[in-house]
Amino acid sequence: MSNEINRAWRLRHRPEGEPRKGDLELVEEPIRLPSPDEVLIRTIYLSLDPTNRIWMSDMEQYLPPVQIGDMMRGVTLAVVEQSRSDRFATGDVVMPHDGAWAAFQTLPAARLSKVPAKPDLPRSAYMSALGPPGLTGFVGIVDIGGAKEAETVTISAAAGAVGSIAGQIAKARGCRVIGIAGGPDKCSWLVDELGFDAAIDYKASDVGAELRRLCPDGIDMHFENVGGAILDAAIASMKIGGRIALCGMISAYNEGGPVSGPREFQRVLMQRLTIHGFLVMDHFRRARDGYAEIEGLIRDNRLKWKDHIVDGLDNAPDALNLLFSGKNDGKLMVRVSEP
Amino acid sequence: MSNEINRAWRLRHRPEGEPRKGDLELVEEPIRLPSPDEVLIRTIYLSLDPTNRIWMSDMEQYLPPVQIGDMMRGVTLAVVEQSRSDRFATGDVVMPHDGAWAAFQTLPAARLSKVPAKPDLPRSAYMSALGPPGLTGFVGIVDIGGAKEAETVTISAAAGAVGSIAGQIAKARGCRVIGIAGGPDKCSWLVDELGFDAAIDYKASDVGAELRRLCPDGIDMHFENVGGAILDAAIASMKIGGRIALCGMISAYNEGGPVSGPREFQRVLMQRLTIHGFLVMDHFRRARDGYAEIEGLIRDNRLKWKDHIVDGLDNAPDALNLLFSGKNDGKLMVRVSEP
Repeated sequence: MSNEINRAWRLRHRPEGEPRKGDLELVEEPIRLPSPDEVLIRTIYLSLDPTNRIWMSDMEQYLPPVQIGDMMRGVTLAVVEQSRSDRFATGDVVMPHDGAWAAFQTLPAARLSKVPAKPDLPRSAYMSALGPPGLTGFVGIVDIGGAKEAETVTISAAAGAVGSIAGQIAKARGCRVIGIAGGPDKCSWLVDELGFDAAIDYKASDVGAELRRLCPDGIDMHFENVGGAILDAAIASMKIGGRIALCGMISAYNEGGPVSGPREFQRVLMQRLTIHGFLVMDHFRRARDGYAEIEGLIRDNRLKWKDHIVDGLDNAPDALNLLFSGKNDGKLMVRVSEP
Repeated sequence: MSNEINRAWRLRHRPEGEPRKGDLELVEEPIRLPSPDEVLIRTIYLSLDPTNRIWMSDMEQYLPPVQIGDMMRGVTLAVVEQSRSDRFATGDVVMPHDGAWAAFQTLPAARLSKVPAKPDLPRSAYMSALGPPGLTGFVGIVDIGGAKEAETVTISAAAGAVGSIAGQIAKARGCRVIGIAGGPDKCSWLVDELGFDAAIDYKASDVGAELRRLCPDGIDMHFENVGGAILDAAIASMKIGGRIALCGMISAYNEGGPVSGPREFQRVLMQRLTIHGFLVMDHFRRARDGYAEIEGLIRDNRLKWKDHIVDGLDNAPDALNLLFSGKNDGKLMVRVSEP
């Protein structure tokens, strides 16, 4: 192990717009062996998420931006290779709190969480339905949006890792659920496979008109992942007292700088709306309940998900851009080493 | 009574920008005597409020806009002149649910609420501290904003009828309260008379810089009456998880059309903010608690307010414009007849 070489993507330039070749550099460097209370882990899966793009920018954000020269930050699933901590043994599967786009990491044991073994479920699920995206969907629907039985719930980027779980949780709780997604394949997946009540193809239709048609009595709760014109369309159809769980605004992440608020902001007052921004990292105390609900639905065959797995750490930067074109098909992640 | 002539302001044109002469017309017309279950009331006070301007526009809003030719809508305090209902007697003081800019109104008894007699308090208080503005302040601070002891609370239009009550309720509940108001007189009234911890004169200083200076640890709860640049400045200083009670956006009411949202909307996500629009009319179930708290503070000499009373229904349109220039000094109302 001590002779092995690590490979890691380091940030070289802050991207302008979509990340391009040269913004990140794949560096070979020696693996540092663990000191006492440290653990050496090998990355299995690297999750690629819209928020990665935020971390690359020097804008004000919820975590410090990745510094030039630093390893790119990422959510990962890893296996313990060498442990100098009583809490971890070789072969344990863990999620580091400070994961990175790297083949190996040497981290304090206190910054790792053990992942329970579920031999009948693929390990990639810890990056998707049973990982942060799943918990984000649960928290947004249940705690932030407070979706209740018989309510009308709309979800943007509904075929995405978060939106698809959010919608299925809302369906399981008795809501009428309408998804907004790009393209006929994603829309038919939502309706035919996941049981959404309807789906709107934002690339082929007027989202505002479709929301008015499908929600003539208005939207009780909207789960927002996109921002911009999609959020404007949802706000135009919110019921009096409607709630918006603001989970993301992917439409703006490549632009950098400030993001303008809704075009018809007076409706927040006139319709007495609530807009509630949230980040899953504030809600890990809900992990036990959230994952229990999701796992129960999976085992009852009432919740499905897709993992879009790209092979090889080398391909991580190119794969990231699939998110911004919407070309990924399921939760996007990189298989860095064999699970 | 049957020979008396009523006088009422009727809407003739929808204003563009600030209301001008000719938009409203003072019309003399016969008083209609009450039918069974109706009551004839004489207006004592007519409340002038920023929201009056919204009702004059044909924009989407929370009540139907006043129609061209209709009496202008307004919150009023009135006394019963003739009653054909068992529930009301001549001399009762009432608030009509459908008040208007008129000397007299003939209304169904079911659309009137009796006002309790408080001989030691001026009747004008029912238009201000013990009326809808006071309840708006209470609901915004307590129910919508959830202000808690030791939190930092900021309030725009803090010397206004709503803001000044909101701030004093927050102070009484142990918050640190900073008001934003126009001009040194209003600012010193807030600090020296009402006990605010600080006040920012938006006409003389950089509100954003002053908020950063006065709230180095950020704002827990912001009570917004103004919108636009003031809201932008508050959003820039909100603490993680901060709450914004959106009560009004007076800065935009004369513009008509859509009102753009916050300039740095990404902060709603990054700082996990909640923006909650509310209207007091949804919260009248809180009237008993709210007015009890306010009256208790008044009797303990811990809550003060000012009424700016303009004499004569003729002067209502000119007086309304004082609100938009901020030239009123206290809760603005018209004394239509002797209390």
